[in-house]
Amino acid sequence: MLDNPYYSSELHGPWDTYDAGNLSLEEDGELCNLKLAYSVHGKLNAAKDNAILIPTWFAGTSKLMEQIYIGKGRALDPERYCIIIVNQIGSGISTSPHNAPPPHNGANFPHIRISDDVCAQHKLVTEHLNISELALVVGGSMGAQQTYEWAVRYPNMVKRAAPIAGYASNTMHDFIFTETLIDAIKSDTNWNSGNYSSHAEVSEGLSRLSRLWLVMGWSTDFFADEGWRQLGLASIEEFQKDFMAGLFTQMDPNNLLCMAWKWQRGDVSRLTNGDLAKALGRIKARTFVMPIDSDMFFKPKDCAKEQQMIPNSELKLLHSVGGHSGLFGFEPHYLEQIDACLKELLSLPTEN
Amino acid sequence: MLDNPYYSSELHGPWDTYDAGNLSLEEDGELCNLKLAYSVHGKLNAAKDNAILIPTWFAGTSKLMEQIYIGKGRALDPERYCIIIVNQIGSGISTSPHNAPPPHNGANFPHIRISDDVCAQHKLVTEHLNISELALVVGGSMGAQQTYEWAVRYPNMVKRAAPIAGYASNTMHDFIFTETLIDAIKSDTNWNSGNYSSHAEVSEGLSRLSRLWLVMGWSTDFFADEGWRQLGLASIEEFQKDFMAGLFTQMDPNNLLCMAWKWQRGDVSRLTNGDLAKALGRIKARTFVMPIDSDMFFKPKDCAKEQQMIPNSELKLLHSVGGHSGLFGFEPHYLEQIDACLKELLSLPTEN
Repeated sequence: MLDNPYYSSELHGPWDTYDAGNLSLEEDGELCNLKLAYSVHGKLNAAKDNAILIPTWFAGTSKLMEQIYIGKGRALDPERYCIIIVNQIGSGISTSPHNAPPPHNGANFPHIRISDDVCAQHKLVTEHLNISELALVVGGSMGAQQTYEWAVRYPNMVKRAAPIAGYASNTMHDFIFTETLIDAIKSDTNWNSGNYSSHAEVSEGLSRLSRLWLVMGWSTDFFADEGWRQLGLASIEEFQKDFMAGLFTQMDPNNLLCMAWKWQRGDVSRLTNGDLAKALGRIKARTFVMPIDSDMFFKPKDCAKEQQMIPNSELKLLHSVGGHSGLFGFEPHYLEQIDACLKELLSLPTEN
Repeated sequence: MLDNPYYSSELHGPWDTYDAGNLSLEEDGELCNLKLAYSVHGKLNAAKDNAILIPTWFAGTSKLMEQIYIGKGRALDPERYCIIIVNQIGSGISTSPHNAPPPHNGANFPHIRISDDVCAQHKLVTEHLNISELALVVGGSMGAQQTYEWAVRYPNMVKRAAPIAGYASNTMHDFIFTETLIDAIKSDTNWNSGNYSSHAEVSEGLSRLSRLWLVMGWSTDFFADEGWRQLGLASIEEFQKDFMAGLFTQMDPNNLLCMAWKWQRGDVSRLTNGDLAKALGRIKARTFVMPIDSDMFFKPKDCAKEQQMIPNSELKLLHSVGGHSGLFGFEPHYLEQIDACLKELLSLPTEN
């Protein structure tokens, strides 16, 4: 295990840990002694029908999702719902390359797929928390990929689904974009095929990744509007160096590579021999597909194509100048739209 | 001088060479013995009022512009106009890092600005070709930057202007995108601060640049439509490796860095102490501002903002699924739009 203060409970906790045991992976092999870190906000009611699940996005944590999306009086209200946020495998909080003991430590960590996360989360929810239905699964970006996987894999269990800014089946363009993020890390000679002794050695590669994120992860309007001021930053230099590079250089390269590999290959049609319409046709959940209008890689047009294959679904286009990073909710009107959509979705009767 | 068969007259010629002498640069110093490579298509008429100038884009050449934009019966018809295509400084055809003798060879090449190109082109056109008015200046991308510079710097000489897919004053987002291209080359340890002995040593950096171009230089729809088939390529692998990496790995890294530095800093408001409205207000040319709808870095919205500051101008939005690379004209309907717009523009009376 590599020491990395970024993944501490001081910064991202508190969390509970579920020992999921050994997880058989969709790729060959298994992940030993999987520990899923999760947080619960609110209480399960007697009917056990008020549970909401939120999976995390690339480089995100349960704390971040809590801070942005949950609150009293909001759609995801812990006084009304029992909200479970699960940190994805590789996030640095759940079992991840940087914290795994041998034989899975660091560069030896196996390839994980979205399906592996969802199967492990299913075990947590059903076996550990004794919950057999989810009123809603909602997540952004890689959280949307997990949301789709949940709705297709467990159609009777998921009553409502809200994938935000993400695809059910990843596109070639997005795959290649993600490859540039991977390449940015691997371009650092200190990456050493994943065998570094501290993430700090790979800061050049992590900084390079942060600069690619800068170009694709926001939007041209965000730059035209000097949107970093809304983040409390005085200049583009502060935004670029202190905020973006400052964030990614704290993270573990192998953790990011684990998540990026998974992100590239998210595809619910793996459950139906490549037939995406058949996979999405399985969904019984009331579904709101929620792309962000200025997103540069999860495009509304491509999200709409998927939405049209989902029986009980609607497209809800979110407005943000933040591009994909609009997900961070730095605009009050974005949060208002999120809450309005999720309140509407939660008020709808379900069909299963 | 480094040997590089890519910049040969077999591939990109024939061209004429104008010895422009020593060019005083906007940055300190001068470029010695500047040679501008240009090609002329068609004949100057007796009134000397049928000359059209086309500057080249990033990594482009006069041959490419000729092949895509010029033809009998088209808007840029060599039977009607005297069309001069000038290769920009750093293009590899005109004086460039890879072909410059000492003291400007390779890494010692000075920083060049768009204004330096346009001043040198002005000398070529007025002193060498004895032309005192241009019926049209038209160019794409960095060619658009030069077009704007021409129209602002020499308002009485430029009768019509058609900047395609480019800005008069570059945006912060585009600057940062271009920085990732620069960084891709410099990330190659063999780049060695520009002191390599062959471009082939830096093929890893050049390939990295090609992959970033892949993500930003086309569009998500291009990938969704498998647009590479329109380029005669059978698979994404062929497109990525043979076509894109195959193209950029033939080029000289210092040449690309020279052009990228120039591209980042294109800004006609340097002529008016940073007042963009004042600079664009100077333009007397009938101007069609022609962004491409799917362009990911020269956005129609930002082009429209500039167009609104130009007195005698119209916005003509071009449709392409190619994103910025729609400029390559692989779609018949794109070429039809170009020709229709330029024919219309050339038919308009001028006011100066």
